[in-house]
Amino acid sequence: MARIKLYDTTLRDGSQGEGVNFSLQDKLAIAQMLDRFGFDYIEGGYPLSNPKDEQFFQQIADIELKHAKITAFGMTRRKGVAAEDDDCMKALRDSKAPVITVVGKTWDLHVTGVLRVDLEENLAMIRDSIAFLKAEGREVVYDCEHFFDGFKANPDYALQTIKAAEAAGADIIVPCDTNGGSMPDWVEEALTKVQAEINIPVGIHCHNDCELAVANSLRAVQSGAVQVQGTINGLGERCGNADLISVAANLSLKLGYDVLAENGIEHLTELSRYVYELANMNFRSGQPFVGMSAFAHKGGMHVSAVNRFSHSYEHIEPETVGNSRRILVSELSGRSNIVAKTSKYHLDQDPELMARILMRVQDQENEGYQFEAAEATFDLLVMKEARIYQSQFKRIHYRVNVKTEEGQEPITEATVKVSVDGQVFHEVAEGDGPVNALDQALRKALTTSYPNLASMHLVDYKVRVINSTEGTAARVRVVIESQDDKDVWSTIGVSENIIEASWIALIDSVEYKLLKDAGTFARELVTTDEKS
Amino acid sequence: MARIKLYDTTLRDGSQGEGVNFSLQDKLAIAQMLDRFGFDYIEGGYPLSNPKDEQFFQQIADIELKHAKITAFGMTRRKGVAAEDDDCMKALRDSKAPVITVVGKTWDLHVTGVLRVDLEENLAMIRDSIAFLKAEGREVVYDCEHFFDGFKANPDYALQTIKAAEAAGADIIVPCDTNGGSMPDWVEEALTKVQAEINIPVGIHCHNDCELAVANSLRAVQSGAVQVQGTINGLGERCGNADLISVAANLSLKLGYDVLAENGIEHLTELSRYVYELANMNFRSGQPFVGMSAFAHKGGMHVSAVNRFSHSYEHIEPETVGNSRRILVSELSGRSNIVAKTSKYHLDQDPELMARILMRVQDQENEGYQFEAAEATFDLLVMKEARIYQSQFKRIHYRVNVKTEEGQEPITEATVKVSVDGQVFHEVAEGDGPVNALDQALRKALTTSYPNLASMHLVDYKVRVINSTEGTAARVRVVIESQDDKDVWSTIGVSENIIEASWIALIDSVEYKLLKDAGTFARELVTTDEKS
Repeated sequence: MARIKLYDTTLRDGSQGEGVNFSLQDKLAIAQMLDRFGFDYIEGGYPLSNPKDEQFFQQIADIELKHAKITAFGMTRRKGVAAEDDDCMKALRDSKAPVITVVGKTWDLHVTGVLRVDLEENLAMIRDSIAFLKAEGREVVYDCEHFFDGFKANPDYALQTIKAAEAAGADIIVPCDTNGGSMPDWVEEALTKVQAEINIPVGIHCHNDCELAVANSLRAVQSGAVQVQGTINGLGERCGNADLISVAANLSLKLGYDVLAENGIEHLTELSRYVYELANMNFRSGQPFVGMSAFAHKGGMHVSAVNRFSHSYEHIEPETVGNSRRILVSELSGRSNIVAKTSKYHLDQDPELMARILMRVQDQENEGYQFEAAEATFDLLVMKEARIYQSQFKRIHYRVNVKTEEGQEPITEATVKVSVDGQVFHEVAEGDGPVNALDQALRKALTTSYPNLASMHLVDYKVRVINSTEGTAARVRVVIESQDDKDVWSTIGVSENIIEASWIALIDSVEYKLLKDAGTFARELVTTDEKS
Repeated sequence: MARIKLYDTTLRDGSQGEGVNFSLQDKLAIAQMLDRFGFDYIEGGYPLSNPKDEQFFQQIADIELKHAKITAFGMTRRKGVAAEDDDCMKALRDSKAPVITVVGKTWDLHVTGVLRVDLEENLAMIRDSIAFLKAEGREVVYDCEHFFDGFKANPDYALQTIKAAEAAGADIIVPCDTNGGSMPDWVEEALTKVQAEINIPVGIHCHNDCELAVANSLRAVQSGAVQVQGTINGLGERCGNADLISVAANLSLKLGYDVLAENGIEHLTELSRYVYELANMNFRSGQPFVGMSAFAHKGGMHVSAVNRFSHSYEHIEPETVGNSRRILVSELSGRSNIVAKTSKYHLDQDPELMARILMRVQDQENEGYQFEAAEATFDLLVMKEARIYQSQFKRIHYRVNVKTEEGQEPITEATVKVSVDGQVFHEVAEGDGPVNALDQALRKALTTSYPNLASMHLVDYKVRVINSTEGTAARVRVVIESQDDKDVWSTIGVSENIIEASWIALIDSVEYKLLKDAGTFARELVTTDEKS
């Protein structure tokens, strides 16, 4: 089976999508998950464009990756500037990324009209930029912007740009359907002609404006492309990029190509949902392969038949991509998931307990809980059902008060009353906001008994409205990510009241920390470590 | 240009989608719009399955249509029953529909395993059902269930079922990729073989489980299919059916086929949004051709180029499909975005003002504001800088109080003090959460002066932490989407305090509503109208 290299640009092109906004922490976490599952290239960003991307490259350089190569993205040098004096080139060189992706103009109209340079200078810009980066010892991917439109308008010049890139030492040429307007036949025709002209491999970069990004990517591979660029869940500008989830699944399960790590395909559902969570976006239930509804069956006769001949009603086994069948209307993510998640406790030998956990998870998910991004809360749930959980303190009550005076900053005060071993602690604190104030007051009330809480702090706080049809009266889901010197863990709370939802997540986070330090999650640490 | 007939099954297969539920009135309204825009066949339902579908056929029969043919869907007769005695056959006959679509089994496994009849009886069921309906003078479409899987498993038997249908007088044969698992090459290969065996035309019916429903439909047409079955917006079970919006646009604008009525393509955006509205579903902003973001542009240099060479940055003119270009104000925003965005106010002749707006936007974006998702707040900002803004009320203060008692639900109370024309209103309200309580109290305080606020409500509430590295002390961005009977608008608030951020967004939303009703956004309404 030929190896097709998957080039993920979720962190760069994907973050161009409307409302997509990854924190530095998010980007590092996603990059490490992509590496773990066997993506070959991870485009981290555009170092010149903003400090966040610049920092990403400095920090990822210190993290050991299993397989993936980190790539930095940038444009060819500006006109009339030597590559070594060009800010973008310098930023790319300084990024420490072993691979640099340079994008250049292919379409004569864009060269003369948009860039406002003559056609010859554009070729020089491509040559100089690639030569400079090769001299710096980098692997260079050359992205041909607007290739397919440019090739239609002026095939001769389009091919000149590609030959210039090859001559300058580019390691691979990647024609881009930047506007997403191409049909599969056009992609095949152009790629065939390109390969006749050059002696280095080609890749493909598609956008979904005609709902054909995946089809065009597959057609490109069948026409000889060995690298596919895209994003997780097809995040990206306008209608998005090619969804690497569908591309990977089709290449591997339908067309017999070798992609990702050995078991990478089985993690596609987990990867898809993890990225949605970090992007703070809702899952697309109808998303191919990984959507909640992708293997949902309704209709009585149909379902009974599905039970007898499931393979004949599903184009693949849901488990192949880490998804699960949904026969009932239940939101339950599937028994197999629960078994998998609890296996570390060796509880699966106790079917009666498994059934209890399953039911509890189902109830919780119907209320709006989602455990994909809140494993700490899930572990507490398992312990509670397994009766091996013991709260380290007793909540009595909390109060939050937000006051404003004309033209002044609001003042937020929280009081928390808890008891530890029968001793009551009642504390008050101010904060930048209600959750911060609650966090302060809770620590104040607990640190006498648990000084180790000082080593923990909250690193992320995400809020999502679940059924937004009721506006502000809708249910709110809060996910809190906490960290200490060793680990990172996430907890979740759901309520109609955002303060209550935050409080629930906050309490779980503290409980988890205390149980963790008490050595309860000896095995769990391994899991969360990978994420931190 | 060859005519490709579009067969819409939104009202039947589409209504199988999770959460899709059309009333009888909805179905009649959608059918008439589909007819107006030139769809050739409209499958109204499955008369035997439920009374609503039965009624639909009786009522639509009395409505004069311009072009479309109404079709009723049903299965072949049951085993061992004469067609004329079969309930489904009788329901189809009585439906008054001029066209009947009969679905039959192609896959031997389903015949013997699911249907539990021998292979010969299944052929008889196909023959008898079609012959009966032809004798009733109907046009008959024969849908071959699981055709592509069946053809792989037992090509010989699959072809026998098709020949049986042809022999019985079927007008067209439609192979169905019921499980949505086929690749474009497989579709082409099978259709080519089918056409070699029969002398009647073929169609195609695809599902999107591999994200290839549109690609497979196009490939089928290029392989000789003359009818494409699908649904508006790709509604349907699991991952949905082929989206006829994309199919129609690609066939007409990219591949030069004749589809729909003369100006039908220009109405695709309207049709897409109308169906979402009646299905009570949210638009998919990234949907190809018709999504809100399908022609959205961000990024300073990029946008200035778009203005000069729009055609080179868009695969088609947005207006061709009834959509419109949107310039997003974003972190990457340069002056050109602002110029484009404010052009409707004709302020770009005032360079000094433009510079002020640009500076203000950049300051705000540094604080964490993002106007791409909050156009109403942006419009207010422009008016403030242009000094044409006048607040409709004066904020004095608000207070929020969240109380919990052991083991009880939290109680949330908000007080709001404002003045309108010097008259002070001080009100208190409870809510499900702090934002809801504030919303209630604010309305209570303002409705005396502005009764029209009663017509507005919040439809969505989104929260994001911006620099999450500081945990709960991080800045919080709140985006509120509001709606009245005419428009939908979004406002944004940013603060370290989630309550304050929500309050800011809430105030903007109300201010916008009041100014809107005062006719301030005469031109803006056009924009938002398209969105609502």
